[in-house]
Amino acid sequence: MSAEQAALQSVEATIDTSVERLMDLIRIPSISTDPAHADDCRRAAQWLCDELTSLGFDASVRPTGQHPMVVAHDRDAPAGVPHVLFYGHYDVQPVDPIALWQRPPFEPARVPQPDGDSWITGRGASDDKGQLMTFIEACRAFKAANGTLPLKVSILLEGEEEIASPSLAPFLEATAQELKADVVLVCDTDMWDKDTPAITTMMRGLVGEEITVTCADRDLHSGIFGNAAANPLQVLANVLASLRAPDGSIAIEGFYDDVKDLPEAVRAQWSRLPFDAEGFLGMVGLSQPAGEADRPVIEQVWARPSFEVHGIQGGFTGNGFKTVIPSTAMAKVSFRIVDGQDPDKVRAAFRDHCRARVPADCTIEFAEHGGSAATVQPHDSPMLNRALAALTEEWQTEAACAGTGGSIPIVTAFKDQLGMDALLVGFARFDNRIHSPNEKYDLSSYHKGIRSWVRIMAKLAEG
Amino acid sequence: MSAEQAALQSVEATIDTSVERLMDLIRIPSISTDPAHADDCRRAAQWLCDELTSLGFDASVRPTGQHPMVVAHDRDAPAGVPHVLFYGHYDVQPVDPIALWQRPPFEPARVPQPDGDSWITGRGASDDKGQLMTFIEACRAFKAANGTLPLKVSILLEGEEEIASPSLAPFLEATAQELKADVVLVCDTDMWDKDTPAITTMMRGLVGEEITVTCADRDLHSGIFGNAAANPLQVLANVLASLRAPDGSIAIEGFYDDVKDLPEAVRAQWSRLPFDAEGFLGMVGLSQPAGEADRPVIEQVWARPSFEVHGIQGGFTGNGFKTVIPSTAMAKVSFRIVDGQDPDKVRAAFRDHCRARVPADCTIEFAEHGGSAATVQPHDSPMLNRALAALTEEWQTEAACAGTGGSIPIVTAFKDQLGMDALLVGFARFDNRIHSPNEKYDLSSYHKGIRSWVRIMAKLAEG
Repeated sequence: MSAEQAALQSVEATIDTSVERLMDLIRIPSISTDPAHADDCRRAAQWLCDELTSLGFDASVRPTGQHPMVVAHDRDAPAGVPHVLFYGHYDVQPVDPIALWQRPPFEPARVPQPDGDSWITGRGASDDKGQLMTFIEACRAFKAANGTLPLKVSILLEGEEEIASPSLAPFLEATAQELKADVVLVCDTDMWDKDTPAITTMMRGLVGEEITVTCADRDLHSGIFGNAAANPLQVLANVLASLRAPDGSIAIEGFYDDVKDLPEAVRAQWSRLPFDAEGFLGMVGLSQPAGEADRPVIEQVWARPSFEVHGIQGGFTGNGFKTVIPSTAMAKVSFRIVDGQDPDKVRAAFRDHCRARVPADCTIEFAEHGGSAATVQPHDSPMLNRALAALTEEWQTEAACAGTGGSIPIVTAFKDQLGMDALLVGFARFDNRIHSPNEKYDLSSYHKGIRSWVRIMAKLAEG
Repeated sequence: MSAEQAALQSVEATIDTSVERLMDLIRIPSISTDPAHADDCRRAAQWLCDELTSLGFDASVRPTGQHPMVVAHDRDAPAGVPHVLFYGHYDVQPVDPIALWQRPPFEPARVPQPDGDSWITGRGASDDKGQLMTFIEACRAFKAANGTLPLKVSILLEGEEEIASPSLAPFLEATAQELKADVVLVCDTDMWDKDTPAITTMMRGLVGEEITVTCADRDLHSGIFGNAAANPLQVLANVLASLRAPDGSIAIEGFYDDVKDLPEAVRAQWSRLPFDAEGFLGMVGLSQPAGEADRPVIEQVWARPSFEVHGIQGGFTGNGFKTVIPSTAMAKVSFRIVDGQDPDKVRAAFRDHCRARVPADCTIEFAEHGGSAATVQPHDSPMLNRALAALTEEWQTEAACAGTGGSIPIVTAFKDQLGMDALLVGFARFDNRIHSPNEKYDLSSYHKGIRSWVRIMAKLAEG
C-alpha cells in the first residue's frame, strides 16, 4: 500500500476524533478585534502549539505586538522533497448580533442534516479553524500511518487575520530565512460548490476606512436649527450615496482607470462553470444583483471592485423619538479592489471624493482600517496543476480555478516579502455563514478536506 | 398701589425662593420617552399639583394611558373677567450623551455669568420647567400681594409633550367643558433676543417617521457577497440623500405644492428685526446655511419646511472593523411642515418617495412618530395686542411677533378641539441648549418672565 493510501485509511479510522479536536479548538473564543479576548487568542495559539508538538513538530508560540503567531517545523522529511509552508489563522470574527445564533457560538455541536451530511457549528467552525485543521489532521494521518510526511512541512498560524494582520509583515521580515519555502499553502477559501473543489487564483484586495463627519459643535434641536444647520447624518448619507452610481458602478472619478478587465480565457472558463447567480442571491433572500448592471454576478463578486458600508452610527437611535440634529456621524466602509488597483491610490481618491462633498463649515475625518492589493496567481504553475490533479482525484470531478471576492492580504505579503507563490485550497462553502450568526462547517468539507490534503501532499512530493 | 404693582413688588422680594422652587422641580428626572422614568413623571406631576394646591387652586393629578396631566382651577377671581387656560409641560428630553454635560443634568445649580446674569442649569431648566414656573410664580405673587388673581385662571400641565402628546387629544375631548376658556396661554417659546420679548404667531408642524430597510435575510460577508448583494446601509443612504436637492430644497415630488409663501407684510417685518444669521449659525460653530439657497436663514428656520435625520443605526459600529453587510438598517427622521401642508399627505408622499428608491428585492418599513400641522395666529387679535403691550412695558423695547421652527402640536389641538386661540409667550433664548447637553435657563429669563406674566395678566384683565 502506498504511503498516501495508508494515510487515507488512517483518516477514515479517526475522523470522529478529528471532529472532536476541531470542536475543542472552536470552544476557545479567540475574537481578535476585541481586547477582552486577548487571553483567549493566547490560549488558542498554545492549544495549536501543543497539538503540533504532539505530532512531532518543533512548535512554538511567538509573541507579536498583539496576538501571537504559532510556528512549527517538521524535521523528519526525506531529503530532496519540496518544502511547503502551510498558513492558517486561529482568530475569529465577533459574534454579534448574538441573539440570532440558534446555538451558542462557542459551544460547537455536530448536527445531522437531511442529506446525510452533518454541520459542525460555531464561530470559526469554517473560518478558519475548520479549514486549518484539515491540514493538521492530514499531517496526523501521514505520521500515524507512515511515521513521516512526504514533504518538508512548516506551519504558520496567525491570530490577527480578521483585524488585517498588523503584525504579519514585521514578523515575516524577522523570520524570512526560517519560513521561506517553495510554496505557501493557504486554506481559507471556498469550494466551487459542494461537489466541485477549487483553487482560488484571483483574490480582491481590501481598503478599510472609518469616516466621521462633524457639523455643529454641539447637538441641536431641529425645531430651532432645522434647515439652516448642516446635519452630519444627512451629509454622511449624501457622501455614501454619491459613491455608487445608479448603474451600480463606483462613482469616484478615475476609479476604474487601473482596473484590468478579465482575460477572455478566464471569462470563458467561468461561463462554463455551473454558477447559479439566481441561487447564489436566493440563498440569502435576494434576487437583484446590486453591482455593475452590465457585469454578471460572478464577475461582480470575484473580478470587479466593490464598495460596501459596514456600519453607520449617529444621533438618537433608542426607543422613542428625539428631534435632535447631532454634532457628528460615523461610518465604517471598505473597498474590495482588483488586479491593477493600488490600495493607497484608492484610499486617497476616496478621501478626496468625500472631502469634496462635505460643506465648507463641516469637517470629515478618516481613520485607516487596513489595506492590501489584489492577487492573481499564474495559471501555468506546475504546483498549481499538481494540486488541481490531486483534488480532481479525490472529488472525482474536475477541480476549478476560481476567483474570490474576499481578501487574503497575507498572500501579497508572502509574495512581496518571501517571494513565494501561494496555493489557495479551501473546502468552505458559500452557505457557511462565516462572519455571520450560525456559522458552520460541513462534516464532508472537513472529512474530504483532510483527504484532499493527503492527496495534495503526496502529489506535490512527486514533483 | 395697583394690584399689578403690588404683585411686581412681591416678585422682587421672593425671587430667590422662586429659583429654589424651580430647582426642586428640575431635580425630578421626568424623562417621558424612557419607561424607566415613569415614576419620576408621576412625581413631577404630584409636585406641581401640591404647589398649585398650596396657592389655593383646586388641583388634581389626572391619569392617562401614559404620564398624568395636572389640572388646576382658581375659584377666587372676580366675576366678569376673562378666563385663561395656561399650558405647560413637566416632561423633559433624554440626557444622552451624558458625557458632555459639565454638571449632572438633574442637579441644578445657579451659575454666575460674566455679564452679571446667572444660569439655572439642568435638563428642563428651560424646556419647559423654567418656562411653566414663570406663570406659576406670577400667580403666587398676585395671590401673595392681593389675595386674588386678576383673571379667572385654569392650568393644564402635560407630561407627554416630548413624546408627541399621545394622550392630549383624548384628554381634551373628555375635559372640553372643564378646560374651555377665552384663550390658552402657552409658555414654551423663545424671546427674539435677550433684550427683545416676542410672541410666537407662526409655528411649524411635525411629521416623525422611523424607517427600516431590510435586504438579505441574514448578515453577509462582504468578501463573498460584496457588490452583488444589496446593502441596506447603502440603500438607506441613497434614500436619505435623495430627499434633499443640491440647492437645499426637499426633493419629494409636489412637496412644495401646498406651501404658502410668507405674506409680504410679515417678510417686511422680519427683515427689520435685528436677526443676525451669521451669529445664529456661528453660535454653534457653523457658517453655511444648509436649507433652500434662495431663502434667508430666518425663513429657513421659521417659515419653510425642513427634513432632518435624527439617528441612523445599522451594521458593525464597535471598536475595530468587521466587513459585514448587515441585514437591516434604521433611521429616525422628521419633517417640519408649514402653513398649508397636511401632515398625513406629507407622510404619504415621503413613504411613496422612499419606496420608489428601494430595490425590488429589499423592503422598507415605516413607523409613525407623531404628526401635527403648522399653526398661524391672527395678527389682529385684541388679546395678542394687549399681551404685546404688556411685554413692551416690562422689557422697555417693542415686543416682536415671531415665527418658530419648533412644533407645539398642542396649539393645533386646542384650536381644533376647544376652539381656542393660543398666545405663545416664552422667555427662552436661542442658546439655552434645549434637547442638548448643558441646558440652562437665564435667571433674567426667569425673573423678567415672572414679571411679564404679572403684567400680561393685569393687561388682559382690562379687556
